Amino acid sequence: MNFQTKLNTTIKKNNSLLCIGLDPEIEKLPKHLLKKADPVFEFNKSIIDKTEDLVCTYKPNIAFYEAYGLTGLASLKKTIDYIHSKYKEIPIILDAKRADIGNTAKMYAKAVFEYWNVDSITLNPYLGFDAIEPFLEYKNKGIIVLCRTSNPSASNFQDLKINGKKLFVKVAEEVIKWNKKYRNCLIVIGSTWPEEMKIIRRMAEDMFFLVPGTGTQGGDLKKTLESGLTKDKSGLIINVSRGIIYASNRKDFAEKARQKAIEIRDEINKYR
Amino acid sequence: MNFQTKLNTTIKKNNSLLCIGLDPEIEKLPKHLLKKADPVFEFNKSIIDKTEDLVCTYKPNIAFYEAYGLTGLASLKKTIDYIHSKYKEIPIILDAKRADIGNTAKMYAKAVFEYWNVDSITLNPYLGFDAIEPFLEYKNKGIIVLCRTSNPSASNFQDLKINGKKLFVKVAEEVIKWNKKYRNCLIVIGSTWPEEMKIIRRMAEDMFFLVPGTGTQGGDLKKTLESGLTKDKSGLIINVSRGIIYASNRKDFAEKARQKAIEIRDEINKYR
Repeated sequence: MNFQTKLNTTIKKNNSLLCIGLDPEIEKLPKHLLKKADPVFEFNKSIIDKTEDLVCTYKPNIAFYEAYGLTGLASLKKTIDYIHSKYKEIPIILDAKRADIGNTAKMYAKAVFEYWNVDSITLNPYLGFDAIEPFLEYKNKGIIVLCRTSNPSASNFQDLKINGKKLFVKVAEEVIKWNKKYRNCLIVIGSTWPEEMKIIRRMAEDMFFLVPGTGTQGGDLKKTLESGLTKDKSGLIINVSRGIIYASNRKDFAEKARQKAIEIRDEINKYR
Repeated sequence: MNFQTKLNTTIKKNNSLLCIGLDPEIEKLPKHLLKKADPVFEFNKSIIDKTEDLVCTYKPNIAFYEAYGLTGLASLKKTIDYIHSKYKEIPIILDAKRADIGNTAKMYAKAVFEYWNVDSITLNPYLGFDAIEPFLEYKNKGIIVLCRTSNPSASNFQDLKINGKKLFVKVAEEVIKWNKKYRNCLIVIGSTWPEEMKIIRRMAEDMFFLVPGTGTQGGDLKKTLESGLTKDKSGLIINVSRGIIYASNRKDFAEKARQKAIEIRDEINKYR
């Protein structure tokens, strides 16, 4: 099943636009898990089992695994395989923000879609089309291009004006073009920038946006939904990571994460 | 020893500005290596042992290892450890073109400098300063920021004009500012763009440039050296990957790679 079909199926089934970011940090895990053979996987598994009926997708960020070397990366692989085997309909986004020249981009695409075996990937546009093309050619996959990121320094380059148009708007124009041909593109736009989101929504009425920045980073849910929803009250994948997975660091962590996920899913739905 | 000291020491010792890109593809390796337990490591080891007196640095691109999953990444770790233990003075650049928001960038910096344990890393500037800062804080390491990449689509965004200045020039201006504070920055500029290199050299008289694009990608060595050398005939790290490591795919591959490396090192030195 292709990414967008899986995504739409799960959005409907779970009545949810919530994406949970699986970004484990050893220091923040509940102490009792540290005695297990693979604490990171046990943590993810518990969170997943308690939230699988509340999300539209899961998004592990590979940095949080790579920081623990091959052991951490093995936990990532186990997590991805676990979701695929137990919750077949839930798509997985690997947040890796990749970009390299064509020859190398092919190797990254192979890594992402053949080895890690995820449904979707985040990419950085700075190198231009030929760094994205090898990913686009996996037509069943979701190709999510950074446009306006959620961090404070996003404006350093993304707001520079080219003939009156900001760089992030020029990037969105290109991604929209690529999407016309390949039909598998999405756009990243942080919930910390609702005005910018409005601009991109006017340009791309039907495309999905991946929206980080809600929760710890301070993005406003109401404004995000008002700025970014499509006419059919969808089109947004609202990611929350720390705000859910670290709701508690005790034995009740998964249950507390579930409560927080219900709360956020319901708040999102209030504005749909 | 910090990155720039190691780099300058090895440049002098080997009289070389050549960087060899260690980008192994299983399909291109000599057949006899495929019988070994770790063909990728054996390949790298042979190339390194035959070229260690000809280079100023080695640059593995992590994509070529990640494509083979945990096995490939284990070969990368072995390669890095091998260089550090046997050729202590040769610095290693990990080509990974990372970038993420601050909280995540910290995890990438930890991965790169504490787990992979390399001397230097390539980064993508699109997210702005706070995505680079966690790396800059490792003051002994080399922080190499993409400015003008070697690929044909580089012009898609990097050439967009902001008040008459191209984006890659705006990026270079920022990196030069960061370098004033942290003293550990370098700039990527492809040898396929000698005119652009001249512009950046005028802006950054003493900074090191990492220069991909020579060899298979068609960058011209003479023009590159004329455009990019500093006044003391240094300041460039000229990377060649495929053009050297695949000089032969038979039992003589390492010897042929050595011959090719001598040829390129000497050609570079002709213009210094």
